[in-house]
Amino acid sequence: MNKQDKILIVGAGLCGSLLALRLAQRGYKVAVYESRPDLRTTDISAGRSINLALSDRGFKALRLVGVEENARKICIPMYGRLIHDVEGNTFASNYSGREGEYINSISRGDLNGMLLTEAEKHENVTLHFNTKCTSIDIENTSASFQDYKTKKTFTVEADVIFGTDGAGSVLRKSYYLEKKFLFSYSQEYLTHGYKELEIPADSNGKHQLSKDHLHIWPRGGYMLIALPNMDGSFTVTLFLGHEEGVYNFKELNTEEKIKNFFKEQFPDALALIPNIAKEFANNPTGALGTVKCLPWYYKSNTLILGDAAHAVVPFYGQGMNASFEDVTVLDEVLNECEGDWSVVFKSYQEKRKQNADAIGDLAVENYYEMRDHVANPLFQQKRKIEMDLEKHFPKEYFSKYAMVTFNEEIGYHEAMLKGRAQDKALLNLLADKDISTAINMTKEQLELVLKKVQEETNTILEEDKVADLR
Amino acid sequence: MNKQDKILIVGAGLCGSLLALRLAQRGYKVAVYESRPDLRTTDISAGRSINLALSDRGFKALRLVGVEENARKICIPMYGRLIHDVEGNTFASNYSGREGEYINSISRGDLNGMLLTEAEKHENVTLHFNTKCTSIDIENTSASFQDYKTKKTFTVEADVIFGTDGAGSVLRKSYYLEKKFLFSYSQEYLTHGYKELEIPADSNGKHQLSKDHLHIWPRGGYMLIALPNMDGSFTVTLFLGHEEGVYNFKELNTEEKIKNFFKEQFPDALALIPNIAKEFANNPTGALGTVKCLPWYYKSNTLILGDAAHAVVPFYGQGMNASFEDVTVLDEVLNECEGDWSVVFKSYQEKRKQNADAIGDLAVENYYEMRDHVANPLFQQKRKIEMDLEKHFPKEYFSKYAMVTFNEEIGYHEAMLKGRAQDKALLNLLADKDISTAINMTKEQLELVLKKVQEETNTILEEDKVADLR
Repeated sequence: MNKQDKILIVGAGLCGSLLALRLAQRGYKVAVYESRPDLRTTDISAGRSINLALSDRGFKALRLVGVEENARKICIPMYGRLIHDVEGNTFASNYSGREGEYINSISRGDLNGMLLTEAEKHENVTLHFNTKCTSIDIENTSASFQDYKTKKTFTVEADVIFGTDGAGSVLRKSYYLEKKFLFSYSQEYLTHGYKELEIPADSNGKHQLSKDHLHIWPRGGYMLIALPNMDGSFTVTLFLGHEEGVYNFKELNTEEKIKNFFKEQFPDALALIPNIAKEFANNPTGALGTVKCLPWYYKSNTLILGDAAHAVVPFYGQGMNASFEDVTVLDEVLNECEGDWSVVFKSYQEKRKQNADAIGDLAVENYYEMRDHVANPLFQQKRKIEMDLEKHFPKEYFSKYAMVTFNEEIGYHEAMLKGRAQDKALLNLLADKDISTAINMTKEQLELVLKKVQEETNTILEEDKVADLR
Repeated sequence: MNKQDKILIVGAGLCGSLLALRLAQRGYKVAVYESRPDLRTTDISAGRSINLALSDRGFKALRLVGVEENARKICIPMYGRLIHDVEGNTFASNYSGREGEYINSISRGDLNGMLLTEAEKHENVTLHFNTKCTSIDIENTSASFQDYKTKKTFTVEADVIFGTDGAGSVLRKSYYLEKKFLFSYSQEYLTHGYKELEIPADSNGKHQLSKDHLHIWPRGGYMLIALPNMDGSFTVTLFLGHEEGVYNFKELNTEEKIKNFFKEQFPDALALIPNIAKEFANNPTGALGTVKCLPWYYKSNTLILGDAAHAVVPFYGQGMNASFEDVTVLDEVLNECEGDWSVVFKSYQEKRKQNADAIGDLAVENYYEMRDHVANPLFQQKRKIEMDLEKHFPKEYFSKYAMVTFNEEIGYHEAMLKGRAQDKALLNLLADKDISTAINMTKEQLELVLKKVQEETNTILEEDKVADLR
């Protein structure tokens, strides 16, 4: 490989545009093809503002390419969850007991546009919109496209093809269908789907709920969440069973049923959403799936990254962050062994696969936590103690959430193993009343709790290790 | 649904022929289509005898259709593992400490033929061989076939279609490709493959190794196993990495390398396999994969069973048993709610899915156990104590292996959860020297061990429950 290699990137979403920018910075010739129109000049989302949670793993990648500060300017910090009960009472639960640890609501379109604009500043980058990839020949490293406007089809040959074409990846599909190697593949859907709604800004353009929080209305079998936008609105998402449960998307098929459902379950949110029934009927119901697969690469020819390799459900707010981290890790591997793409791809996959699997599993777990556990007394006690521990022992204690979200130097897999053991330790110590849950513990009392939690966590990890069959 | 429903079964392997027999016994009109020739009149395996392990879940299903006794006549009981080390030393490890608990080596072809012959005795059954299913229209409940001999294609319409067409199921593929519903699907390959070899009978037609055992040559990164056949031969299977490790299938590409590998690693087996290099080169290398999916049915039209729904790797000896158990469970559901196929299918799936997932996971786990742990001192101590416990407390103690293999009234999922907790308890008690490993323990000493294991197992299950996020 040399810097004159012609690199083709399929998909100019968040991952693809960041990858294009980074490879351009490294001196490669990069051509990017995207099926959709240029989102900087077209209003794709038809009036709806889609936001995502950006956190430290994402920032690390943005820092690498030099756009962190610009991205922070369009971020709205969310310091914790604000839980809404059915009576409309709210209670806050911080994401961290440490100062400066929070997540950020950011517009997908604005961030994507920023990355495209940065990439385009490099003369070794070309961007092609409205060109749908129809198939990829992984043996000959060529991709076929159709131009949406002219309907013409054409083929692009490259030295290397990166598939950053999302959960429905054409490149991944060709791995599956061409059967050139044993391809382990899984797509797992939750029984729940989602629908986006909007709480508009008030007449002064201000937010109608606290903009410092991610709002959650947990109801066990379903839940509503809301993230703030810069224009004063909130993007609201309902997570609900497709066909299961007393209430489900299939059954909510009349204006009356929709209104009654919200009136009964989310009255305070209903008051802020105009024309709920119309929005509900007009907006699509999306599926929630996890994709895992292996291998990610073929020879020195192709590699999939981001959602194409590991789509996750949205409940840890890590989908974009994980995709951005892919670029960070690929860049580290290039620092180590640039020169032969097949060596780079193999090393990248070895470093990354276990962590990608872990965030997929963590995201599914967090669905149950958000839906059920944030309203569970034992869980609430656990979170309260964790906040105290993080506040008083900021260098000793990190919750699972903190390890996943704010500790970009720990891999997702390590965060998962350690975080699960720690959660198990805490929940069992609380259930057995082995640690105090007094309201105002002294630092000495808290130190005792910390010691117990650390000991129990280590015991759990040690016992798992002894019993591990691998 | 009524007894005049025309039922189409695609695939006349072990699961399909048992299902055909049972549905015929219940009075349904059944047509079975199979791509291969009739194995009762054709020598399909080209001189190789393929055997499988039949155990209590399988026998339960065979009992249901009245062929248990006939099947037992062609079984060779295997009472335990016989481990072979590199020096050719052997040591035995029983499957159970109870009397009468053993697994059975049986010829796949002979058992399949027996089921086909039984099914054919019913005039409401027709069998069609050499007809390859090319596609299934799940909406219109029709299947297209090609006759191998005449090359003619034709379509069969039915009221219900059962897909028992194995790991490469055409019916499952149509679920995946037609996208009529969200289809969760996974295919996971091990990095290891397998190759079958043969130890022939001696010149007197006798077995050259103990026929009362399943033989294992565990070597960490790879292993050899051998199961006895009725004709005095053994079917030997080598499990080895496709491309990984010092030795692997890709690298063993010359006569010399193959011979040296066996001479170094399996000298006692090598002495009994004539023409190893030729057999090695001629026999195909197979892949080892696990398939899971959901849903298994579409409306009241179609259902997949057996490997088509849940292919597993062979390391628990439960693939055939699990497929047979599918028929037992479907029959139980028919007893409860015969009348509407969609209700039957839904209820069947609800009862069966969790157990099918569990045996898939158990089988992968057991690979590591067979390959690595049967030669591990802690594991050997555990097995020894388990044998003693089962012998002296036959109604109180059941190892994970016994629950999975000999306790057909416990589902795989329950066996997995309880068995894993029990293994973890035992291994940790042993590692911490909390239980005695004296050679000849009195019953009183053993009872103390039993109590400790039971207590620790319950603690583990309880702590898992408290920490469970679902």
